[in-house]
Amino acid sequence: MTASVTEAPGTEGLTSQFLDVRAFTETLAEPLSAEDQTVQSMPDTSPTKWHRAHTTWFFETFVLGEHQPGYQPVDPAYAYLFNSYYEAVGPRYSRPQRGLLSRPGIDEIAAYRRQVDEAMVGFVDHGLDDRLRALVTLGLHHEQQHQELLLMDIKHVLGANPTGPAYRRARPRAVGAVAEARSDRPPEWIEHPGGVVAIGHEGDGFCFDNETPRHDALLQPFALSPSLVTCGQWLEFMADGGYDRPDLWMSDGWGTVQTRGWEAPEYWRPADGDVSDRGPGAAGDGGDRAERGGWVVHTLTGTHPVDPAEPVCHVSWYEADAYARWAGCRLPSEAEWEAVAATRVDRVHGLDVADLTGEGRGLHPGAPPGPGATGPGTAGDTEQWTGAVWQWTASGYGPYPGFKPAEGAIGEYNGKFMVNQQALRGGACITPADHTRLTYRNFFYPAARWPFTGLRLAVDL
Amino acid sequence: MTASVTEAPGTEGLTSQFLDVRAFTETLAEPLSAEDQTVQSMPDTSPTKWHRAHTTWFFETFVLGEHQPGYQPVDPAYAYLFNSYYEAVGPRYSRPQRGLLSRPGIDEIAAYRRQVDEAMVGFVDHGLDDRLRALVTLGLHHEQQHQELLLMDIKHVLGANPTGPAYRRARPRAVGAVAEARSDRPPEWIEHPGGVVAIGHEGDGFCFDNETPRHDALLQPFALSPSLVTCGQWLEFMADGGYDRPDLWMSDGWGTVQTRGWEAPEYWRPADGDVSDRGPGAAGDGGDRAERGGWVVHTLTGTHPVDPAEPVCHVSWYEADAYARWAGCRLPSEAEWEAVAATRVDRVHGLDVADLTGEGRGLHPGAPPGPGATGPGTAGDTEQWTGAVWQWTASGYGPYPGFKPAEGAIGEYNGKFMVNQQALRGGACITPADHTRLTYRNFFYPAARWPFTGLRLAVDL
Amino acid sequence: MTASVTEAPGTEGLTSQFLDVRAFTETLAEPLSAEDQTVQSMPDTSPTKWHRAHTTWFFETFVLGEHQPGYQPVDPAYAYLFNSYYEAVGPRYSRPQRGLLSRPGIDEIAAYRRQVDEAMVGFVDHGLDDRLRALVTLGLHHEQQHQELLLMDIKHVLGANPTGPAYRRARPRAVGAVAEARSDRPPEWIEHPGGVVAIGHEGDGFCFDNETPRHDALLQPFALSPSLVTCGQWLEFMADGGYDRPDLWMSDGWGTVQTRGWEAPEYWRPADGDVSDRGPGAAGDGGDRAERGGWVVHTLTGTHPVDPAEPVCHVSWYEADAYARWAGCRLPSEAEWEAVAATRVDRVHGLDVADLTGEGRGLHPGAPPGPGATGPGTAGDTEQWTGAVWQWTASGYGPYPGFKPAEGAIGEYNGKFMVNQQALRGGACITPADHTRLTYRNFFYPAARWPFTGLRLAVDL
Amino acid sequence: MTASVTEAPGTEGLTSQFLDVRAFTETLAEPLSAEDQTVQSMPDTSPTKWHRAHTTWFFETFVLGEHQPGYQPVDPAYAYLFNSYYEAVGPRYSRPQRGLLSRPGIDEIAAYRRQVDEAMVGFVDHGLDDRLRALVTLGLHHEQQHQELLLMDIKHVLGANPTGPAYRRARPRAVGAVAEARSDRPPEWIEHPGGVVAIGHEGDGFCFDNETPRHDALLQPFALSPSLVTCGQWLEFMADGGYDRPDLWMSDGWGTVQTRGWEAPEYWRPADGDVSDRGPGAAGDGGDRAERGGWVVHTLTGTHPVDPAEPVCHVSWYEADAYARWAGCRLPSEAEWEAVAATRVDRVHGLDVADLTGEGRGLHPGAPPGPGATGPGTAGDTEQWTGAVWQWTASGYGPYPGFKPAEGAIGEYNGKFMVNQQALRGGACITPADHTRLTYRNFFYPAARWPFTGLRLAVDL
Repeated sequence: MTASVTEAPGTEGLTSQFLDVRAFTETLAEPLSAEDQTVQSMPDTSPTKWHRAHTTWFFETFVLGEHQPGYQPVDPAYAYLFNSYYEAVGPRYSRPQRGLLSRPGIDEIAAYRRQVDEAMVGFVDHGLDDRLRALVTLGLHHEQQHQELLLMDIKHVLGANPTGPAYRRARPRAVGAVAEARSDRPPEWIEHPGGVVAIGHEGDGFCFDNETPRHDALLQPFALSPSLVTCGQWLEFMADGGYDRPDLWMSDGWGTVQTRGWEAPEYWRPADGDVSDRGPGAAGDGGDRAERGGWVVHTLTGTHPVDPAEPVCHVSWYEADAYARWAGCRLPSEAEWEAVAATRVDRVHGLDVADLTGEGRGLHPGAPPGPGATGPGTAGDTEQWTGAVWQWTASGYGPYPGFKPAEGAIGEYNGKFMVNQQALRGGACITPADHTRLTYRNFFYPAARWPFTGLRLAVDL
Repeated sequence: MTASVTEAPGTEGLTSQFLDVRAFTETLAEPLSAEDQTVQSMPDTSPTKWHRAHTTWFFETFVLGEHQPGYQPVDPAYAYLFNSYYEAVGPRYSRPQRGLLSRPGIDEIAAYRRQVDEAMVGFVDHGLDDRLRALVTLGLHHEQQHQELLLMDIKHVLGANPTGPAYRRARPRAVGAVAEARSDRPPEWIEHPGGVVAIGHEGDGFCFDNETPRHDALLQPFALSPSLVTCGQWLEFMADGGYDRPDLWMSDGWGTVQTRGWEAPEYWRPADGDVSDRGPGAAGDGGDRAERGGWVVHTLTGTHPVDPAEPVCHVSWYEADAYARWAGCRLPSEAEWEAVAATRVDRVHGLDVADLTGEGRGLHPGAPPGPGATGPGTAGDTEQWTGAVWQWTASGYGPYPGFKPAEGAIGEYNGKFMVNQQALRGGACITPADHTRLTYRNFFYPAARWPFTGLRLAVDL
Repeated sequence: MTASVTEAPGTEGLTSQFLDVRAFTETLAEPLSAEDQTVQSMPDTSPTKWHRAHTTWFFETFVLGEHQPGYQPVDPAYAYLFNSYYEAVGPRYSRPQRGLLSRPGIDEIAAYRRQVDEAMVGFVDHGLDDRLRALVTLGLHHEQQHQELLLMDIKHVLGANPTGPAYRRARPRAVGAVAEARSDRPPEWIEHPGGVVAIGHEGDGFCFDNETPRHDALLQPFALSPSLVTCGQWLEFMADGGYDRPDLWMSDGWGTVQTRGWEAPEYWRPADGDVSDRGPGAAGDGGDRAERGGWVVHTLTGTHPVDPAEPVCHVSWYEADAYARWAGCRLPSEAEWEAVAATRVDRVHGLDVADLTGEGRGLHPGAPPGPGATGPGTAGDTEQWTGAVWQWTASGYGPYPGFKPAEGAIGEYNGKFMVNQQALRGGACITPADHTRLTYRNFFYPAARWPFTGLRLAVDL
Repeated sequence: MTASVTEAPGTEGLTSQFLDVRAFTETLAEPLSAEDQTVQSMPDTSPTKWHRAHTTWFFETFVLGEHQPGYQPVDPAYAYLFNSYYEAVGPRYSRPQRGLLSRPGIDEIAAYRRQVDEAMVGFVDHGLDDRLRALVTLGLHHEQQHQELLLMDIKHVLGANPTGPAYRRARPRAVGAVAEARSDRPPEWIEHPGGVVAIGHEGDGFCFDNETPRHDALLQPFALSPSLVTCGQWLEFMADGGYDRPDLWMSDGWGTVQTRGWEAPEYWRPADGDVSDRGPGAAGDGGDRAERGGWVVHTLTGTHPVDPAEPVCHVSWYEADAYARWAGCRLPSEAEWEAVAATRVDRVHGLDVADLTGEGRGLHPGAPPGPGATGPGTAGDTEQWTGAVWQWTASGYGPYPGFKPAEGAIGEYNGKFMVNQQALRGGACITPADHTRLTYRNFFYPAARWPFTGLRLAVDL
């Protein structure tokens, strides 16, 4: 953990923040049955109940276990079952087999959360030094990451079910209003003259170690597109044979398209399919679907027609890169993205409890902040820097110059993943509102499609 | 379905039998949480809730759907989700992915069962001809098979969990009494002079098509062991390097031993292991465990020390065959087994409701009928023809001379599996009491270890 | 090795027989380049040069190494490289990686053969007792088996090459003459009244241990087809949707058809394909090929149009079983086949050197003895018991009642394969002429298609 | 192809250069038997004869086929068999199955080369414009790349053979002299003040498109180690548990170590092993080998004891990265490497014909230029920028700012691999002498170990 983790507030504030974040996890799990919370749909995803337990284990292990004298773990087996990848802490249960665990069940896990929460409140109320406050704060940011993962993962679980169940009902949206707001003439690309820019986190607020140190980067003149690539634009790419033209793809990407039979973004399905066209193993049968009956998309609120005005979501880096090439553009680098975003964004959008209790905008993937929320035409809306989809960059995820991982097991948090993955920027509609930052560095393998991922274009000037 | 399915009783009797069998499935599922009922631990197993739904689908599809005019399915998607392998009925959901389905949940499946049960009772009460009575009877035997599968499968699910949960608590057993009864001088091998014997089902009772036609078989003189191979004998085999000597094994079996790292029967674990030694991925580390701390075994009633007096259970055909070779014997053929059993058995033992409500003997695998049940020393107890473990035979599972599968989709029930599998005889402690017969032919692939399988020896005379 | 291995002739005869068999292997390898002899096309096949070395290793290890005092192996590494599966002899090089070995090359292997041949001739000339004569004789039969494997395997290697090379040129055949001879009215099915028949080898001639002991078998009345199923009949099966109807197939067979995309026998290719339609990875694209441009077949003499009059070859057991079901018949059991063959066959046909030097009939798979060889219309020709294709039976390959494997490493020859495989009878056009017998039991996994396999039908009477 | 490919000399010079490069490929293949040239040891490698044919196909397809009117291909099937990955040119034979092709054999391929060479000489002699001269030059650089691949691949083929054959005999080396030259006090680390540096190719000489455009990069102050990490240092890393400590590794790297059982660099084997310890499938059995009998290494000149003074070779990026972390350092970025190298190197070392005919230094991997070649103590020797091993960098392989791939099929040469791989710099002892440059960008997946790869360390200042 870095010295920059310093925003931990006073004892009362920290306790309150702790309880809020912890409660929000339970709010997210609330619409899900015991069965829903048990299933693991692929090795990359985890069951909902595992997320609930793992985030609890994190506090139990790194805070209570190491710093609360005499603390007795709720169940010694949990140290084995709910360690995700911390080698320094001991052996761990195999990740791809998390879905084999029916026990502990959701009631036991709820009790586990309550017991650890009580112990944590007592621990925090006792007064913490800066280092421990920072550690608790890190645990909360860790839990917020898992809140997003929980939603990503349950969407995949429900999407594997041919009956297409919804996570929750959609709040009716004033679609017309959005469309109208969007119908203004297209905004202009955002130009940047290049030169030396400062990149990375600074200041007192919390950040992860991988956002540091702040450092200079040298840019060539470039421009970024003023909005995200939309489903409508993606349909044009598909209609132009985008998934059939190897010249548009990286070699590894083309191999992946062939092997997995991709012909549209994840969760898109032909509108005229039946039950056997859905779920795992459903075979695509041709790229001319878009011309025939159109496409529907599985979302957290059920299956809806693809909306051409929405940002495209659930595309892999390979697809994003191929699309950019098809469009005569490229993906932005991390530094380019951050340099521009820093000059355009006044407010970071994200998910809050209201979204899940029906008071705010829907959970529909990629749904931009509706007109009633912040008003049309603001930079935050139109340009969608955060709050819509994570944006793939051209940058491989690696260490910043001078990067040092945190000491101890916590140091395994980010640093050990700095190869083979691509960096993403921004934040998605399912990212907790106070979790992302303009310096935030997300990362996934280039074939991943279950995160809420889209893209923005760049060109050289 | 064959003409021999003729034991279907009158309308009242059939309704009562129907309700009994259907209720017993629910009784078996009752100790299991929603989470337990959702997990699929390997491609060969199915979730409990899938068994509950599939057996219901069988009646809905083959009885109501085909013979009740105007019947509307409870949910059209179920025809896709709960078809197991009937190609003639249409496409089906991929078997290895049954564990991905969180929906329908156990409440919906309970409702599905109730609705179909109601419709079935109405249908049966209306009066059925012989053919339809036979069809309903077949559905009941099908459900009884799945009752056994349900127990096999949930044992595997719970066995995959490092915390070693029990399906239900064990009823205390009078171990001493059993041991005492067993301590008499060893019974003698059962000799048979060979010659022509009649094999297969005859008479009015129900049987599956694969038990017919009854036909003559020619035997050489042989003898069968008067009891099943025990855990104590298996420990001797292990101590003698049984799992390390390729000369004892079929080539395919030895390859399987190497690939899977077998060093003891399924569910046996070193007594001195910790949580990370259990569950999938737990690596064995040597064959001298038996000499050190001994072995424990995961059972439906939790983890217990291996009892040397009990029949060994959960061994594959490869292991049974290797053991027999090590012992200077061989496995019996199907015909040998049936020829001897027909002369020794007065009562077929099996599982009944009492076993599950605490009134009878435990569910511990391989537990033979206790002394209080039938008295010691009878042929039925000592010789364990049924009610303990399924007994591997030397016979590949194939058609009897003159075999004809039933017509229509039902004809896919048995006949299409008649290659690559080995026949088993007898019945296990989890086989419903009125489900097995001395002519019953069970079958599994030779590497299968999750059925309740053991062995009896044979020698040429 | 069994007592029945007693045909080993006197010293001179044995030496001459040894040299003949050894020379024939070299004759078979002669048309092949160093490159051809090095390739392994799948895990089941072995490179030609490996066959040449392994058969030599067999004599070196089991004869010279064990019985020639002071014998020094030609190269100690060969014991590791050229052991096929004899666990008792020590570790061995991994089978699927035999194609990785460029060294020793074909010149070194030729030298190895010469050195061992010299040592063997000296050893034999010294005079052998019955047991050693039998052991040498076994080595010769072992080498004959590998002669057939060599041809099977090189056909597969060359068949994997999109340029479709031939092993050797075909001798022109008088096709008209054969067709004419065949145009007589169809011969009648051969009926058998059933009852007890004696099966298995007896007498002084050589046999493998798996052909013993001779024993009684009990048969029901049945009839066998008087000839093998032809390519023309197979085309009818294909045209009738044989590869698209799951009701015709065993469950495992149907799964294999789906997984591997079978739509015709191995080596059949659409007549109108181009180079990218051939070799591994070439995708089939529909079952209506037979109706369009017809089919060609890759053979040892190159690519030819499929000849409807020839016995179908290179079909798996799954296909043979499905065909028989489609035809309203079944496959014969081993005992049925042997009982009938014993009454019909006067001469066992097979491959001899003349076949390979252009003086006899061609090597075209399934080519029956031509008219010039034995004359048309004899039982041997029409009924094709041997010398055409191996004939799948309904019998799983297992031990005969009372079977005892030979002692020592040689005992691994046959016995350890007695599960999961199906028995075949007869012999193929590439089986050395004096190698097969009516009691000979060949065996392959039910999915194997690279052996020269076909079928004969049976029906119950 | 970029505008920078401009060094193509006049007609005579080009013809001579063409013949030299083409002849050198044949020289490299000369010590190899037909068997050696046929084997493919893993999907990543290709048979020698495939390299010989593919480089020929490149000229036939891109030069003669497109620019020589009326040119008839030597064999139409070669377009399918010898296309490596050019999607724009048509379908191609599956890469992992190149080892299945016994035909065409080495004689046919030699003839193919001669025919194309003749046609090419005629074509070049006719006079070429700049664009075509550049295209021919590109083909020559392509062939030089395959010369290195040929040596990498044949080393792997021979290394898979338990008998450990050598590609050629080693020329005796004056080891003492080298050691003496090295025994001076250790040279100092090379410091760099950071700032803006220009990176990438400029000028008239040939380069690949991925080396352009030359552009500015911004560096922090850093230092590079003055020599490559040696085998002796690697042994210290191993002795300190380098392969057993997850904290030293990237997560993907640690997974790879576990899965593949790495415990030393590729080609290292325990000195006390026997034949079954070598070749594929040989299991490592512990990390304390270094302390016991030491290690030997398979090289192109046979098996030798590991020489502590030599640069370590055949380590993956994962290993290089872990080593650097263990040493308290990091890997340099591409820009850091190039910025320093540009100031230190006066001559690029590499492989020339003399090396292979016994007149120069040996082919032993990692062998630095010997004292007799350039004199001891020069920067080029001690610092080993080229001519020893390729040096892994911290940089993912991606496009330079403003990068544009060449037009047409040739554009698939480099650009489509710009994800998932790591960049390497320098050049190896098997890289043709005039093939590498200080701006040259090589790239491999981070798990690759069969290239001649080592590392140099970096630290922040």
